[in-house]
Amino acid sequence: MSEYRKVTTNTVEKLRKILKNDALLIYDDTESLKSYSNDESGGEYYAHMPDVVVKPETKEQISQIIKLANDEMIPITPRGAGSGLAGADIPIFGGIVISLERMNRIIEIDSENLVAVVEPGVVTNDLCRMVSEKGLYYAGYPMSVETSFIGGNVATNAGGSKVIKYGNTAHHILGLEVVMPNGEIVEYGGKRRKDSSGYNLLQLFIGSEGTLGIFTKIYVNLIPQPGKVVDLLVPFESVEKAISNVAPLMVETKSLPSGIEFIDKKSIYYASKYTGMKLPYQDEVESYLIVQYEATSLQEIEELYEKGGKALQKNGAKDVFIADNRSNSEKIWRMRRNWLESLKAVDPYVPTGDVVVPTSKIPEIMNYINEVSNEFKIDIPVAGHAADGNLHPAPLKPKNLPPDEWKTMSEEILEKIAMKASQMGGAISGEHGVGFIKKELLKKTKLKQYKWMQEVKEAFDPNNIMNPGKLF
Amino acid sequence: MSEYRKVTTNTVEKLRKILKNDALLIYDDTESLKSYSNDESGGEYYAHMPDVVVKPETKEQISQIIKLANDEMIPITPRGAGSGLAGADIPIFGGIVISLERMNRIIEIDSENLVAVVEPGVVTNDLCRMVSEKGLYYAGYPMSVETSFIGGNVATNAGGSKVIKYGNTAHHILGLEVVMPNGEIVEYGGKRRKDSSGYNLLQLFIGSEGTLGIFTKIYVNLIPQPGKVVDLLVPFESVEKAISNVAPLMVETKSLPSGIEFIDKKSIYYASKYTGMKLPYQDEVESYLIVQYEATSLQEIEELYEKGGKALQKNGAKDVFIADNRSNSEKIWRMRRNWLESLKAVDPYVPTGDVVVPTSKIPEIMNYINEVSNEFKIDIPVAGHAADGNLHPAPLKPKNLPPDEWKTMSEEILEKIAMKASQMGGAISGEHGVGFIKKELLKKTKLKQYKWMQEVKEAFDPNNIMNPGKLF
Repeated sequence: MSEYRKVTTNTVEKLRKILKNDALLIYDDTESLKSYSNDESGGEYYAHMPDVVVKPETKEQISQIIKLANDEMIPITPRGAGSGLAGADIPIFGGIVISLERMNRIIEIDSENLVAVVEPGVVTNDLCRMVSEKGLYYAGYPMSVETSFIGGNVATNAGGSKVIKYGNTAHHILGLEVVMPNGEIVEYGGKRRKDSSGYNLLQLFIGSEGTLGIFTKIYVNLIPQPGKVVDLLVPFESVEKAISNVAPLMVETKSLPSGIEFIDKKSIYYASKYTGMKLPYQDEVESYLIVQYEATSLQEIEELYEKGGKALQKNGAKDVFIADNRSNSEKIWRMRRNWLESLKAVDPYVPTGDVVVPTSKIPEIMNYINEVSNEFKIDIPVAGHAADGNLHPAPLKPKNLPPDEWKTMSEEILEKIAMKASQMGGAISGEHGVGFIKKELLKKTKLKQYKWMQEVKEAFDPNNIMNPGKLF
Repeated sequence: MSEYRKVTTNTVEKLRKILKNDALLIYDDTESLKSYSNDESGGEYYAHMPDVVVKPETKEQISQIIKLANDEMIPITPRGAGSGLAGADIPIFGGIVISLERMNRIIEIDSENLVAVVEPGVVTNDLCRMVSEKGLYYAGYPMSVETSFIGGNVATNAGGSKVIKYGNTAHHILGLEVVMPNGEIVEYGGKRRKDSSGYNLLQLFIGSEGTLGIFTKIYVNLIPQPGKVVDLLVPFESVEKAISNVAPLMVETKSLPSGIEFIDKKSIYYASKYTGMKLPYQDEVESYLIVQYEATSLQEIEELYEKGGKALQKNGAKDVFIADNRSNSEKIWRMRRNWLESLKAVDPYVPTGDVVVPTSKIPEIMNYINEVSNEFKIDIPVAGHAADGNLHPAPLKPKNLPPDEWKTMSEEILEKIAMKASQMGGAISGEHGVGFIKKELLKKTKLKQYKWMQEVKEAFDPNNIMNPGKLF
């Protein structure tokens, strides 16, 4: 990558001219630049300093910046909220960070076509709130909904807990305006709900982690707000018993829950310490499912949770606790939502794995995680999304191990688990993306596909300007 | 395209060796070859004869055939059921037609992971029937479900009437095994429900109309069988009144119907003549909506159609007829399902347009279609999928016009309508694809995107062996 050039004061002057506002550029200010050097992927050891940070407000500015970067062979790293978990927004070759934080307008909520048009820097939760005021619903729901930007959700094809019913972010995106790696501005899709005219390049950008262009406008599909929510907390004596309930629960009740979350005993231990809460049967069971139903009427939701509860009890649940109001639901979800925070209280650099397996293979991968945990003598709590086989193993650093040794060891642990998941017909990332932390794993597990991905990258970005060192 | 070579008897010998069974090859038999020269896209004038037809039974055979075609520079045209409406399966440069008719096994219905694994030549309806026996449901539903192959549905990203609730074919495909344009066999996706590791090439193949490879295995998502269906037939005095109901119906009832079909007065006229049926208010109204609800319980479905019926009546429906049993539903659907057949009875070569617009723009495009109809003094009945703005205008040949003149005129008519749809934020194909009939339109309406599509095509198929002359 030695062909990249450094950002010079001359480059910075050109950037200033494009932005026309000094508040939109950070240069020569180590403290401010530092906040753009890292994300939520774990250790400080992943951080890299950018040469300059720009905060454009228009697509034309982004286009000009990208053209400049091509002319001067300077790498670009697009950045959303910095809540990424795979390092895709870390500027590993320095260069220019393009932060989308100022492109945060909700341009339109079109109730007639059930579409919202937004800029990439909108906090996903703000979008959810705004559309709900009109009786509408954005069905994408990454667990980071309160911090992450919709642009980042699209860039990683974020998943979350509601994928089994509604699909991941890709399912909710009808169109994207993209500044391409050569600076050209192209619109893919739009307010239309079908399009069989030519290749589906729209979907190629979703999950491309900033390596194929920068989104400047996003067309989001909306559905009617369901209105009613009920959560079931369901303890199980074994992981096998919990997972063997997932498919029958859906088939026997003929209904898709909006989510089936999974949390293991070790996770409950840490989350309980952190939140000061205790779940029923906490010391007796090996795992819990949290089953969530969404419906439009009281009648429908009652029918759903009654059928669901019966099916779960028939198939080996130790008990079924129903939370049909906000405060009881909040109790159930508090432990799950605070899962990562509770682990960070023990190990501030805790890395979060993100494997996916066919749902039926969850017990097998959980057994393997247990083996690895024993082999390395490391605690590995696991939580995740049972309905789609997406698990987050989170190895915890032993107190006395130096961070550098832990970096090597934790990467080895997560690599072993990810390779196993891939061998089971799964993948090394279900929703966090590859970034640079998992790029070797991507190559190893998708060897044949990798070559075709490279073909696309080379065709779209021959100078390798857009987020270099990520995925490839 | 002069660089393509002709199929020689030597090539045929090599093909015979690959197939090891003479019944799998058609050569030197004009009558048999002829059935592979055309599809459902309309006129005989679109037909082209293949040099040779092969019916491989394994992916390895397909791989070898494609390698041979690359070595000898012979074009390949993949073919499913031949029910395509844009000519994607017509061998316009002759060469080898690879018919997938013998690759028609349902390999597995995996109830635990809610996935079916099938070969491309499975009739979509057979898949639907097989999974329903296990209480499961394939939610893709092209109107051609009884004839089309699942492979063709994937190749065109087929839509149909249930897209508003369940999404188009792309939403139901979890994985594909693809023989690439160089003969390499690569698997994309699989039995996993999430995958954020690298570019989503899976989606690139869906809707690629045989230009990027041949699918040999398809992983299909299944959901629980809803079980209960109700149809509402809703007459409206004007198109505007009908369409202005679409979004409010969903938002006010907080529910997604599985489909909202649209059919205009002219279509009813022809369908009525063909079926001998009459719809209520047939001579008084301008259009009908057919609203379909699916649910899991009697209670739920009753609640849905009562709420839906009320909302429709409040918002200007002339009446609401409820069909809650199979025989009444069949009556409602018979006219819609026999729409194309009823037009073919008048004009055997009737071409079917396939434009899509933002739903709110349907009245505008319907007005425009009316203008064009007056300008050319041609009858243009329209039916389609109101909830996703996907309309099929079908211009009818005047009795005394010679077929060749009609070809030119009908293409001009459909081009005008398609261009208008594109200008309204729509597209020239919602679900039928581009094939070769609409390739000039694709270029005109997606000029910027077209270039990037070409980049992908050139990277994947540098010899332009796979279905040449389609899309590009």
